[in-house]
Amino acid sequence: MKENRYDDPVFFAKYSHMPRSERGLEAAGEWEALQAILPDFAGKRVLDLGCGYGWHCVYALEHGAAAVTGVDISEKMLAVAREKTTADNAVYLRAAMEDVDFPAESFDVALSSLALHYVASFADMAQKVHRWLKPGGNFVFSIEHPIFTAYGNQDWYRDAQGNILHFPVDNYFYEGPRQAVFLGEKVVKYHHTLTTILDGLLAHGFALRRVVEPQPPARMLDMDGMRDELRRPMMLLVAAQKA
Amino acid sequence: MKENRYDDPVFFAKYSHMPRSERGLEAAGEWEALQAILPDFAGKRVLDLGCGYGWHCVYALEHGAAAVTGVDISEKMLAVAREKTTADNAVYLRAAMEDVDFPAESFDVALSSLALHYVASFADMAQKVHRWLKPGGNFVFSIEHPIFTAYGNQDWYRDAQGNILHFPVDNYFYEGPRQAVFLGEKVVKYHHTLTTILDGLLAHGFALRRVVEPQPPARMLDMDGMRDELRRPMMLLVAAQKA
Repeated sequence: MKENRYDDPVFFAKYSHMPRSERGLEAAGEWEALQAILPDFAGKRVLDLGCGYGWHCVYALEHGAAAVTGVDISEKMLAVAREKTTADNAVYLRAAMEDVDFPAESFDVALSSLALHYVASFADMAQKVHRWLKPGGNFVFSIEHPIFTAYGNQDWYRDAQGNILHFPVDNYFYEGPRQAVFLGEKVVKYHHTLTTILDGLLAHGFALRRVVEPQPPARMLDMDGMRDELRRPMMLLVAAQKA
Repeated sequence: MKENRYDDPVFFAKYSHMPRSERGLEAAGEWEALQAILPDFAGKRVLDLGCGYGWHCVYALEHGAAAVTGVDISEKMLAVAREKTTADNAVYLRAAMEDVDFPAESFDVALSSLALHYVASFADMAQKVHRWLKPGGNFVFSIEHPIFTAYGNQDWYRDAQGNILHFPVDNYFYEGPRQAVFLGEKVVKYHHTLTTILDGLLAHGFALRRVVEPQPPARMLDMDGMRDELRRPMMLLVAAQKA
């Protein structure tokens, strides 16, 4: 059974109070950078892997998608997604994204927002997404940055007074599970190297269209701790295309 | 004037005693990974930016290149390169790679081994290389990894006893010069983000073919300090192609 932290009531309650949970895409620091590399959704069949609250499904529908399929392991997440989605051309499936399957060439676009670092094998996922996409189809995702996932606890290295000194990197080429702390709770995430992600996409038949490390937008820089986000990359955004 | 550390007698003497200087490509930990992503050289016109001792120029000639042009800022490096190159279809130019220019479509292949982190503007270099390459031409290079260049001094973070704790990352999104220490000497290198390198190549008309973070080969793992190379990536290898 894949880990399902989001159905833990304490974890879910904390997640539900994050700005991005309460206010959606506009409250996510990386949204503008992700939005800039999204494909045209008009008339497209869209898959969202790890759809959570369904913000990206709703966005795709609002931008003309013909149909969206959201997949998430958490029933609590999907309950919110179903509430937020008024259009009837959305289907939400409860499943670990590693376990779902679709016929070949089912989708024009595959999205995934901050979920692929929960997957043990990036290569397997890339291979499946490639099969599910139509030729020329787009795979656009955000994932936690290899710099951010390598060490494990995902926290700054601090002096005795608690001041940030720098961000630690270690065990980079030892891929696999890490015990991270997110919202004060223990969560298992998987560290994948940049090679595994980018060269893996190339090896599985994708062309790379964009590779972007998002920086917080200027309007957010005065928020608590946001300037520290310029000190190390937390996310990697990738737009790939089935060749 | 671009910095020319390699013509400093002390620095050059130290460099000349590195295994890769004394024994060439086979002694470079990343060589096998770089070799694997090199194009076919048969009949090709090849440019090597920051050619140093000319190892890669000689390799290209030995593998059938029609002609090679090596560019380096250091006269001492080029003197060695000229000694090592017995073929007469090699030209070595003394110049900073930012300052050379060639007619459009002069080359089939552009190489650069561990030199592009000495360049202030990666974008300018990518744009020039794109112009100098024929359509379909290959740009293959190694560069110090953004994880390795971000902090600045390029050293491990250690405890009071000198034991390695981890590798520090800081100021990641603040690109520009860093005072690094290489062979015990101060050297200015430039930190470029992954976005600047990879998305920059895409923006300047290249397709990405391979993105590889080399790991030391098994045969070298028992060399002093080599296992630490698995703790953080030091280099990024990229194979790009002019679309």
